[in-house]
Amino acid sequence: MKHIPVPESKNPRLIIIGGGFAGIKLVKRLAKAPLQIVLFDRNNYHTFQPLLYQVATAGLEPDSIADPLRKQLEPVKNFFFRMAEVYSVDPGSQTIQTEIGEMSYDYLVIATGSKTNYFGNESIMANAFPLKQIPQALDLRSHILQNFEAATITDDPEKLESMMNIAIVGGGPTGVEVAGALGELKKNILPSDYPELDFDQMNITLLEGTPRLLGAMSEFASRKALKYLKKFDVHVQLNTLVTSYDGTVAKLSNGDEIKTQTLIWAAGVQGNFPDGINDGSVERGRLVVDEYSKVKGYENIYAIGDIAVMKSKEFPYGHPMLAPVAIQQGDHLAENLKRTFKGKPLKPFTYKDKGSMATVGRNKAVVDMGKLRFGGLFAWMIWMFVHLISIIGFRNRLIVFSNWVWNYFTYDKGTRLIIRRFIPRHRNNHKE
Amino acid sequence: MKHIPVPESKNPRLIIIGGGFAGIKLVKRLAKAPLQIVLFDRNNYHTFQPLLYQVATAGLEPDSIADPLRKQLEPVKNFFFRMAEVYSVDPGSQTIQTEIGEMSYDYLVIATGSKTNYFGNESIMANAFPLKQIPQALDLRSHILQNFEAATITDDPEKLESMMNIAIVGGGPTGVEVAGALGELKKNILPSDYPELDFDQMNITLLEGTPRLLGAMSEFASRKALKYLKKFDVHVQLNTLVTSYDGTVAKLSNGDEIKTQTLIWAAGVQGNFPDGINDGSVERGRLVVDEYSKVKGYENIYAIGDIAVMKSKEFPYGHPMLAPVAIQQGDHLAENLKRTFKGKPLKPFTYKDKGSMATVGRNKAVVDMGKLRFGGLFAWMIWMFVHLISIIGFRNRLIVFSNWVWNYFTYDKGTRLIIRRFIPRHRNNHKE
Repeated sequence: MKHIPVPESKNPRLIIIGGGFAGIKLVKRLAKAPLQIVLFDRNNYHTFQPLLYQVATAGLEPDSIADPLRKQLEPVKNFFFRMAEVYSVDPGSQTIQTEIGEMSYDYLVIATGSKTNYFGNESIMANAFPLKQIPQALDLRSHILQNFEAATITDDPEKLESMMNIAIVGGGPTGVEVAGALGELKKNILPSDYPELDFDQMNITLLEGTPRLLGAMSEFASRKALKYLKKFDVHVQLNTLVTSYDGTVAKLSNGDEIKTQTLIWAAGVQGNFPDGINDGSVERGRLVVDEYSKVKGYENIYAIGDIAVMKSKEFPYGHPMLAPVAIQQGDHLAENLKRTFKGKPLKPFTYKDKGSMATVGRNKAVVDMGKLRFGGLFAWMIWMFVHLISIIGFRNRLIVFSNWVWNYFTYDKGTRLIIRRFIPRHRNNHKE
Repeated sequence: MKHIPVPESKNPRLIIIGGGFAGIKLVKRLAKAPLQIVLFDRNNYHTFQPLLYQVATAGLEPDSIADPLRKQLEPVKNFFFRMAEVYSVDPGSQTIQTEIGEMSYDYLVIATGSKTNYFGNESIMANAFPLKQIPQALDLRSHILQNFEAATITDDPEKLESMMNIAIVGGGPTGVEVAGALGELKKNILPSDYPELDFDQMNITLLEGTPRLLGAMSEFASRKALKYLKKFDVHVQLNTLVTSYDGTVAKLSNGDEIKTQTLIWAAGVQGNFPDGINDGSVERGRLVVDEYSKVKGYENIYAIGDIAVMKSKEFPYGHPMLAPVAIQQGDHLAENLKRTFKGKPLKPFTYKDKGSMATVGRNKAVVDMGKLRFGGLFAWMIWMFVHLISIIGFRNRLIVFSNWVWNYFTYDKGTRLIIRRFIPRHRNNHKE
């Protein structure tokens, strides 16, 4: 395999796989460390995943939630970026194998995040819309808009039903947020865009397998979210699973069916890492790490973010797969690497829970923060503030903010554009 | 062929093909006319073509220059939009045939604009990058960025040369503007994004077949543009044609060659209209119309904008293919249609030339306005002002303005994102 060139360096080489929250934080905190840092990502940009659903629902364009990795990390000395998918790791020779060749490392950090989990259901994998990457969000947006265009000219009432209905599977934050955003589209935008269609015929259904929404949050948040979704005319079905989906009809565990050409799959994620790591270091698709983020059984391989499972008394199954955990682990690992170089003792990781939140739509969100639980307008403002300050890149913050102000005052969403028509045979062609 | 449904109406039906400057203006001016208006376009959005080059050069995202047609034309009563490509017109039965079925008309307006003209050169058509549509601009952007990523890992100096060089063919406004924007990228952005590359090795060449740039403007403008382009480190070769291009090497009429994987084709456009119009009504690929925009030989078929050639003493070969002509013809035809319904006599079209302009880059543009000719900062500010107020849609104006302010003060271009990798076998798969 071809050797990937990078400039010579006297410093040891740290390879990081993945430019998500964890990887970016780690690079930035190692800005002055005696290392040559090489970051691999299959995209040339970082994705701010918490707002991906707004790209799918015509609220934002990709540039609002994506930031070029090279630009973002330019100030870091000894930093190099290589755009490539990493296929495998060979811990024996200390190399990684990628689509553009191979490279050796002194330290390796796996920060590859998670991908959609279909739990082995092939009909769903083949026909549902996942929502983990920007091209997937753009495809979903195009598909929904194309369906409404097609609905204006169909004379088949069954087809019309399946074109107008949308089902979302998974009542976590992504499912709740995308359902709420679609409810807003139905209420404020679609009826004037498509005067020839009757939007009372459009059903938005959110399906959740457990007895409550937002299972990781408080009972209060679950109740409020359910109430808010009803206001946005979203039907919520709890304790319900989807057993199969052929692209037109979703079969449910209670025997019901939903006719829909749009099934959005937000029901689960799983680890996503290159080949070559010993099976003994893997648990339920994630990499087992110690409290220093070191992967079990290896001396110079680390894992941070969604891909890592770090068990503790407080988190017997590992931490939640959330951005704040990834950011804190990136920060913490950088600190420990610097300590290593200085011969100082390492510090174990402790997660500082800053609370969790989800938005449903205009003026409506829920927040759990320590023992505080609240909803409504104030929660919504906190949600917006926290997301705005968390977006990577100042330009992105400005653009998202301008878009939100515009959407708020005009009840408009500017990006209902079908830039590339979605063609069903390309469904799920974006490898995760 | 299936009949395309629209709601019943007592009014005669006007079908417009094409939601460009001419088509949109016409619909808006017929807002209260006793007509049922049906607009066909293969996209669900209007494209503000004058800024397309900024999408290609990482300055803007598509939503800045595209506006959903349904949203834009919502206030018009009796208006219906159908997203479809129109294949042909049958003047005998007064119907059009489209990808979604057929529809009959009482009046037909062809406003289909122009498409890239390769002058029959198949090697160029197969390998060059056109710049007429948003997906083409996104593909070009991805291709350029991917080339720099690939350049960082190549060890073949010839390949490196062809990856870094860019050639632009055609010294009209599009060619000049895209060359200037690439010069700015080279100067301000690429060297810090790709510290491992030597940008003295990057050559941007603008090729023009005639002895001067901006042939439709004054000699003053041509001279100034040439001078400005030199400042942005663009090599301009006048009196030079490209004779062939295989995707790696462009052969020139003077015997020279340019090694480049990126040849941008901005050398010409041609008419683009559906089948079925009598050959006697066509001249050099455009539809011959009288001073009332009526297509020669037909009573109820009109053509406006780039597709129409309306000869007069002042314009023996028809008007220039420019947005202001299209807008004024849309306006004028609406007026005459309303006069027809009121039994008033028709007015012939007269073009009010408001001048022409082109920008090269930061603080540098040229403007011809009546007998005035000027360049530099003032011209650049006028260029920006005129383009901002001309963009369709208030939201787009805001977003473009914010982006420009950001770019100006930070010397940054925010959208250097490879959202979908460009795959060469898909080159030119966007039908025009």
